Amino acid sequence: MPQDTRVSLASDLKSAQIAKPPLQPAASQALPYTIHDYSSYSANFLPEKIKQNSPQDQSSRWASGSHNQLQFITLKLDRISIVHTITFGKFHKVHVCNLKEFKVYGGLTPNSMFELLHGGLRNDTEPETFSLKFKANGVYFPCQYIKIAPLLAWGANFNFSIWFVELRGISQSEPADQAYAEYMNYRENEVVRLCLKHFRQRNQLEIFESIQRRTKIKLEDPLLTDLHRHLVVNGDFAAAEDVIQDASQRSLFQDWIRRSVSSNGCKPVWKRIQPATGEGCPSSRGGHQMCIDAECGRIYLFGGWDGSKDLADFWVYDRTSLRWRCISPDTRRQGGPGPRSCHKVCIDTRNKIIYTLGRYIDTDHRPIMNLDADFWKYDVSQDKWTKISEDTTQEGGPDLIFDHQMVIEESTQVIYVFGGRRVQAGQDANQSVFSGLYAYNIRDNRWSLLREDTTPADHAVQMKSRVGHSMLLSPETRELYIFAGQRSKDYLSDFYVYNIESDTVHEVSRDYSKKGGPNPGYTQRATIDQELGELYVMSGLMKDKMTSNEQLRNTFWIYNIKLDTWTRVYHNDSNPDEEYWERMADKEPRPRFAHQLVYDWTQKVQYMFGGNPGLSTNPGLRLNDFWALSLQRPRNEDILRHARFFIRKQKFREMCVSRTHSPQQLLHYLQNDLSEVVDHADPHESKSFRELTSWLFMWNTFKGPGGTPLFGFSDSATAGGHPAGHPSAQANNFGAGGMVAMGTDSGNLPNDIYSFRTELYSRLIEYFPEEMREPKQSLVDLVPII
Amino acid sequence: MPQDTRVSLASDLKSAQIAKPPLQPAASQALPYTIHDYSSYSANFLPEKIKQNSPQDQSSRWASGSHNQLQFITLKLDRISIVHTITFGKFHKVHVCNLKEFKVYGGLTPNSMFELLHGGLRNDTEPETFSLKFKANGVYFPCQYIKIAPLLAWGANFNFSIWFVELRGISQSEPADQAYAEYMNYRENEVVRLCLKHFRQRNQLEIFESIQRRTKIKLEDPLLTDLHRHLVVNGDFAAAEDVIQDASQRSLFQDWIRRSVSSNGCKPVWKRIQPATGEGCPSSRGGHQMCIDAECGRIYLFGGWDGSKDLADFWVYDRTSLRWRCISPDTRRQGGPGPRSCHKVCIDTRNKIIYTLGRYIDTDHRPIMNLDADFWKYDVSQDKWTKISEDTTQEGGPDLIFDHQMVIEESTQVIYVFGGRRVQAGQDANQSVFSGLYAYNIRDNRWSLLREDTTPADHAVQMKSRVGHSMLLSPETRELYIFAGQRSKDYLSDFYVYNIESDTVHEVSRDYSKKGGPNPGYTQRATIDQELGELYVMSGLMKDKMTSNEQLRNTFWIYNIKLDTWTRVYHNDSNPDEEYWERMADKEPRPRFAHQLVYDWTQKVQYMFGGNPGLSTNPGLRLNDFWALSLQRPRNEDILRHARFFIRKQKFREMCVSRTHSPQQLLHYLQNDLSEVVDHADPHESKSFRELTSWLFMWNTFKGPGGTPLFGFSDSATAGGHPAGHPSAQANNFGAGGMVAMGTDSGNLPNDIYSFRTELYSRLIEYFPEEMREPKQSLVDLVPII
Repeated sequence: MPQDTRVSLASDLKSAQIAKPPLQPAASQALPYTIHDYSSYSANFLPEKIKQNSPQDQSSRWASGSHNQLQFITLKLDRISIVHTITFGKFHKVHVCNLKEFKVYGGLTPNSMFELLHGGLRNDTEPETFSLKFKANGVYFPCQYIKIAPLLAWGANFNFSIWFVELRGISQSEPADQAYAEYMNYRENEVVRLCLKHFRQRNQLEIFESIQRRTKIKLEDPLLTDLHRHLVVNGDFAAAEDVIQDASQRSLFQDWIRRSVSSNGCKPVWKRIQPATGEGCPSSRGGHQMCIDAECGRIYLFGGWDGSKDLADFWVYDRTSLRWRCISPDTRRQGGPGPRSCHKVCIDTRNKIIYTLGRYIDTDHRPIMNLDADFWKYDVSQDKWTKISEDTTQEGGPDLIFDHQMVIEESTQVIYVFGGRRVQAGQDANQSVFSGLYAYNIRDNRWSLLREDTTPADHAVQMKSRVGHSMLLSPETRELYIFAGQRSKDYLSDFYVYNIESDTVHEVSRDYSKKGGPNPGYTQRATIDQELGELYVMSGLMKDKMTSNEQLRNTFWIYNIKLDTWTRVYHNDSNPDEEYWERMADKEPRPRFAHQLVYDWTQKVQYMFGGNPGLSTNPGLRLNDFWALSLQRPRNEDILRHARFFIRKQKFREMCVSRTHSPQQLLHYLQNDLSEVVDHADPHESKSFRELTSWLFMWNTFKGPGGTPLFGFSDSATAGGHPAGHPSAQANNFGAGGMVAMGTDSGNLPNDIYSFRTELYSRLIEYFPEEMREPKQSLVDLVPII
Repeated sequence: MPQDTRVSLASDLKSAQIAKPPLQPAASQALPYTIHDYSSYSANFLPEKIKQNSPQDQSSRWASGSHNQLQFITLKLDRISIVHTITFGKFHKVHVCNLKEFKVYGGLTPNSMFELLHGGLRNDTEPETFSLKFKANGVYFPCQYIKIAPLLAWGANFNFSIWFVELRGISQSEPADQAYAEYMNYRENEVVRLCLKHFRQRNQLEIFESIQRRTKIKLEDPLLTDLHRHLVVNGDFAAAEDVIQDASQRSLFQDWIRRSVSSNGCKPVWKRIQPATGEGCPSSRGGHQMCIDAECGRIYLFGGWDGSKDLADFWVYDRTSLRWRCISPDTRRQGGPGPRSCHKVCIDTRNKIIYTLGRYIDTDHRPIMNLDADFWKYDVSQDKWTKISEDTTQEGGPDLIFDHQMVIEESTQVIYVFGGRRVQAGQDANQSVFSGLYAYNIRDNRWSLLREDTTPADHAVQMKSRVGHSMLLSPETRELYIFAGQRSKDYLSDFYVYNIESDTVHEVSRDYSKKGGPNPGYTQRATIDQELGELYVMSGLMKDKMTSNEQLRNTFWIYNIKLDTWTRVYHNDSNPDEEYWERMADKEPRPRFAHQLVYDWTQKVQYMFGGNPGLSTNPGLRLNDFWALSLQRPRNEDILRHARFFIRKQKFREMCVSRTHSPQQLLHYLQNDLSEVVDHADPHESKSFRELTSWLFMWNTFKGPGGTPLFGFSDSATAGGHPAGHPSAQANNFGAGGMVAMGTDSGNLPNDIYSFRTELYSRLIEYFPEEMREPKQSLVDLVPII
């Protein structure tokens, strides 16, 4: 994708706003503050109390004087700062007045604040630290005021208490002043761009020119300015189509295709990969491990549980030959590891080395088994296993664990291992059952512990250890995405980013299921496409929110990293019968858990193998079916055709009312130019096309058919559904209302034609990356009315 | 006050937006809707259920699937409408899922909504109707979407249920479309005005001119445009002072003086009026009645309770002679009413007639007393009492009541009586103890019942009957303001407006104590100044929010009708000892209740007489002190002087840095022109003046003293307290940030001089009525960042 061309405007606009390392959380310091304002307080629980951290002192807190939704406390920082985190201290016992739900706002003045966090505290005794939003649109957000608004206490009808608040961030004058100046500059630019958009939409081109000439600020990418001139100002539809064609060739619609996942669907296409007759393939299993060397087109599979025993066979699937090959029926024979399940593997595709760590051992067998944490590597080119360590515990690495996560950063040759449950022989009360975050440096053969599970929470964002979670590496940003899983009885749907460079944790979400993401689940599998900026999640056992029952249901989700949005693109029907799945055996995979998923980012295909179908009638049953899942998204050429259809519809309508074309000419245009850009197989498009014929009979009148507005888009796919002819068809867009009173430019062009061309323009630019476009907001929508 | 001149711009801008009667609540109809969106639901409690009103059916409700703060249900109206009220139906039993707190939003699209109501339902079985905000800034607010966001259920941790929702308002196409067009036009105008403000503040005068020329929209009143030209563009400080002087003479600062009540204080001045030696005055009492004929300067006082018996004496106080005169020691002797307390009086100042109705009769005495509701009038000019009615009950009027309210509308000769408790001989379970709203037509001698207390709530806003409340008439708008009081065990702090013309009730607030108003109380007294648009409240017994104890504490509040703001301007110290009040006997009234208050709007003086000091050691003690309370507000000349001080400071600083004046000239200007506009007795002003001398030594440098910005206002009274020299001194105002990158106009004028003159301008226009000024908002503050 030609990144360079399409981000030209964005980099232009934001040239002064490049992330400065000093503003990152790694440099955070405690920010002194005073109490600026508050809603109320009770007794002697004064607002100032939150400045002191005295968990033993029951009076060391602010308590609101009421528990309505109007309560707040506003802190004033000594200096304008970039605020990274907020830490809430707590009482040394659980307390009904703790905040179950709250919001945090920040801003430069108490009257103009933005929401930085919507969170909640656990009702326990541990301090909690939350990441605040401190950057948006490429600029850091300077604050001098931080407002905390309690929403719900743990005890209903109890007033709210806050025991202690610490804010951390950057307040040193140089970086903070710099960020402040960039922020102010950004706001000024955005205002001018909103004005430019506003006046151009209203055909106030003289004002537009004047603003542009004096400020030199660009509204949008020059390509779109061209499109606007051709389409809206000149009505040169052919030239407009050329711009679209050009954009299509430059892959500018890719961004829209990704964004469109959430709206108009991205169809999941399952394909079962059957072994050729007589060919072997791995036997049925769950709890096995897979890894992929995407560039070579090879998928490796090792071990698992077949329903009665652990396996030690080792396979490779070749994408080109479509064949499985058994590397070894038992890796022990090559001096490799023994049978295992619930272990983890990862592959270093540069050096063609596969690593494996951990395994599950049944509680009954623990007394008689070796519980050492062995650690192995397999050299693909030499077909050779090496035992890196007899017992990683002895080398400062993790104990023997299972249901952990493991990823490799190839560039630095470091393996990260997070979470998992310790395989413990007896009950050692002093030891946490959950394993922390470890890094293994391959070159030095050295383990280091980055986060202990039992580390007391200080002012850093805490990421609790867990099992059955997901962890993915983003090599470019050097971040680990860690989410979901289970901790004791809690099913999690939280989301953290661990920054390798700065060794800091950022909480993206405490519960993404509330923001439209997957419900908490267990044994979900996740993959990443760095190029598309997407994570994929295939859920296994889901927890039903209402009943708290476990439910076996596979769903497939796309998470857009940049937009922080979850979209479910596949789910199997709930509880169809056994017969159904037999019938679908080659079409759609039956529900399962303990399956395995890998992603081939070069071909954009997910591969899934085996798992446990969770049949109560046959609990030992495991699967060995192998599936490819690809996502069918809108194609570049579809967008191009759609855009052309819109443009030609507008041209046709203008032809119809212009009185300069004969009915024959109009019919010819309809049957040729328009028809050729219609997908006649699509009932909606086809209908929209057929309706255009009625315009032929209106060619000599200025009224549209059925009294609809002349160029309204009420017949189009995304129309809002307002009653035709009602002014709301233009609501919040650019109603003629505002133009009535003004003189407008572009001489002879009737305002309604200009308006409707503008509406068409607004629709067409949706296909372009946001960085190229005029601002999304409209000034009229920003004006407070009530 | 020359209303005509100062509202010229406002009427100009809003000429098309004059209230159309068809859009008023009187014409309200039920508005059909569909469910557009919702957050979640439980089981079969589908969102659609709220369209049906089936209080008997426990399943006829929407129940959210969670009780977090993200729950909502969005209704889509069939047509764009002006929405006046929302009615919530309920289950036939109290229910834990009822909404204790919720918000209602409305808008033309689901993405751009404004808060219309923040309310809460009682946990009972009666439907409740709430007024929604439907008009702001003189324009009606059209909606097509209404979103209800539950915030709190009565049962903690219960999901939210809504049983039934009815929306009422205007949807007929003609008035609604008209309102829509006016609304859109208003928004367009506001956007242009915001742009005008923005670019002028940034010295982008070419853009400013271009927008003004093309749109013909005025930013502000021409007077202020003149001020801007003189002050900011030309630096003609003398001419700027002339504009201010002119404004002062035209009383344009009156509006600011009223608004300023809430910020910089309005000092209460108590003056005890002692009878001249040997002169009589009414004896000690509480529960008496007073009324005032302000234009004649006469205050009438009738009856009361002296601690052991009801009184029937009748007095008049003359403002000119400062004397009380006893009209009658016992009105029975003139054929007038007998002794009474807790009755009500009102005066028809046109015809000089005083009316009295109701009285309290102790429960013990009821069996032996006549409980007929007698109704009397007193003709002042003829000194004659007439019994209008032996028993108003017989004539369709109220029963014998006490602690009610009574006002007279002189123009229509109608008396309104609301609330009060019925004096009942026995226990009549079928009869409500509270009296409803009655109108007595004097000309026809006819009573009519406007609102029964027991009327079942339908789709109208319900105003429950009560005792010990306040009721005031606004003759111009023909509205009754009804607020506070007590109903059974509930102490109220609600606020209703009854519109006489349309016979409708509007709920201004369910609990104004949450919005900074007085706490609920009992026997508060209220008066009104129609001219200033203010209500005054003197509280009596207050209910302490935390302890629920009654507390005797007098506070005096101003309510600004237009701004809907409460300001407490006086309160006596809490619980000083008896000795303190003896010492203060002539300086400040001791706390009391059952006192009486009247307001002389011609002189702007409140008069208070007597009351019960609530001494537990002497429960029979009543007071007979007489007080005048006036409010000392900023004077016109103070504002003028302040404005001049600001202007001359700016001039002086510019002189200092211009290098065109000798130190002698500068010193001369400081010691004469500046000094003469300083109140040297005011320590703050005096300090600010003295600090200016340091500029003398900076006259030949461009750096301000102490490295402060050149023309910063950090030394001035209202400066924000940002660290001097920090960019935040300009935060959210018009920082130089935005201007750096732009070419600016006004040729040679350095941008910083223009900026600081602009800041001065922004400060000066604060003194002018809002309708004359540029918009309050700034575009930069409206741009969403996060």
